[in-house]
Amino acid sequence: MKSYRKELFFHLPTRRGLVNITKEVQDAVDASGIQEGLVLVNAMNITASVFINDDESGLHQDYERWLERLAPEKPYSQYQHNGYEDNADAHLKRTIMGRESVVAITEGKLDFGTWEQIFYYEFDGKRTKHVLVKIIGD
Amino acid sequence: MKSYRKELFFHLPTRRGLVNITKEVQDAVDASGIQEGLVLVNAMNITASVFINDDESGLHQDYERWLERLAPEKPYSQYQHNGYEDNADAHLKRTIMGRESVVAITEGKLDFGTWEQIFYYEFDGKRTKHVLVKIIGD
Amino acid sequence: MKSYRKELFFHLPTRRGLVNITKEVQDAVDASGIQEGLVLVNAMNITASVFINDDESGLHQDYERWLERLAPEKPYSQYQHNGYEDNADAHLKRTIMGRESVVAITEGKLDFGTWEQIFYYEFDGKRTKHVLVKIIGD
Repeated sequence: MKSYRKELFFHLPTRRGLVNITKEVQDAVDASGIQEGLVLVNAMNITASVFINDDESGLHQDYERWLERLAPEKPYSQYQHNGYEDNADAHLKRTIMGRESVVAITEGKLDFGTWEQIFYYEFDGKRTKHVLVKIIGD
Repeated sequence: MKSYRKELFFHLPTRRGLVNITKEVQDAVDASGIQEGLVLVNAMNITASVFINDDESGLHQDYERWLERLAPEKPYSQYQHNGYEDNADAHLKRTIMGRESVVAITEGKLDFGTWEQIFYYEFDGKRTKHVLVKIIGD
Repeated sequence: MKSYRKELFFHLPTRRGLVNITKEVQDAVDASGIQEGLVLVNAMNITASVFINDDESGLHQDYERWLERLAPEKPYSQYQHNGYEDNADAHLKRTIMGRESVVAITEGKLDFGTWEQIFYYEFDGKRTKHVLVKIIGD
């Protein structure tokens, strides 16, 4: 069994934002030389998500509005976590979108349906965050 | 390390619906000959989910009503994604229920608690959709 | 490829509660002797979650209040599942928080960001429940 590890770094200028990381993950699969296996892609920060869905800007706006409805940023005082912090909503939004995705690797490629794309979703930006790509297989 | 890949196909006559796929996944584990490992089961379409819970019809009705409350189908015009599409709610419902499950394989069997069952949840049916089963192990 | 399996047991005195299981999972990784691989940690009961976030009591109170808003326990009669049961809300809360986490193992350690901690979240306690830790790698 082979394994491969890579970190991806992000520093978004805004509190929230989406980055398509499909190519970076495929690049890691290429670098690993692994033909058959699994790749785990997870946020290493607990106020960000890795998830798989469509690269469509209308949908991304829908996510933004929907997450604000389910877990509003303000007022900050509604959350116990926000004593020294103001990012409790970021922890909740990340919970909805998920910490990680696990993707199959088949014949050296991400084994995806037509529209599947991997995204990093930042909920508490303006600082450096990171994502782990861990690959195991043969 | 061995690996095995199989696709499952679905064509539901309704917009939404649940299918218990536990047996199909165990059949794939059997066919793989893998005794110890992990199986990834993921929707390959981004308007459907794979999740694990109880095979109880009352609960399935509760899911349906709950998901409609958290991410209503109509009015279609409430979503930016719904220019040429009408399925934005399907993307959001799938986000709540999840894209994938990872299950342990022990002594050739899905290593499950008493009530764990794997389901495919369709949120935008009346077309052919597919699920990936990828198994790695020894 | 090596594999390792362990069950963790819980019996909480309350309906809901959080337990940090990071040390137990690292102990299992140590016992496995696996240096590079993946560990799957999943609830074996369908009214409990395994998730990764911050070990901060204010945030845990926020989760509690938020989950009660998204999937209220009472009135019990609002759920079809609650004929002989009263735990439909537990199934829904567990769906939000997730069944499982997959974590990378690198050089024999859980490959975590600074604040990542693994929790068991009980939504229907006062009985014995269990969590599966399954590790594969080399």
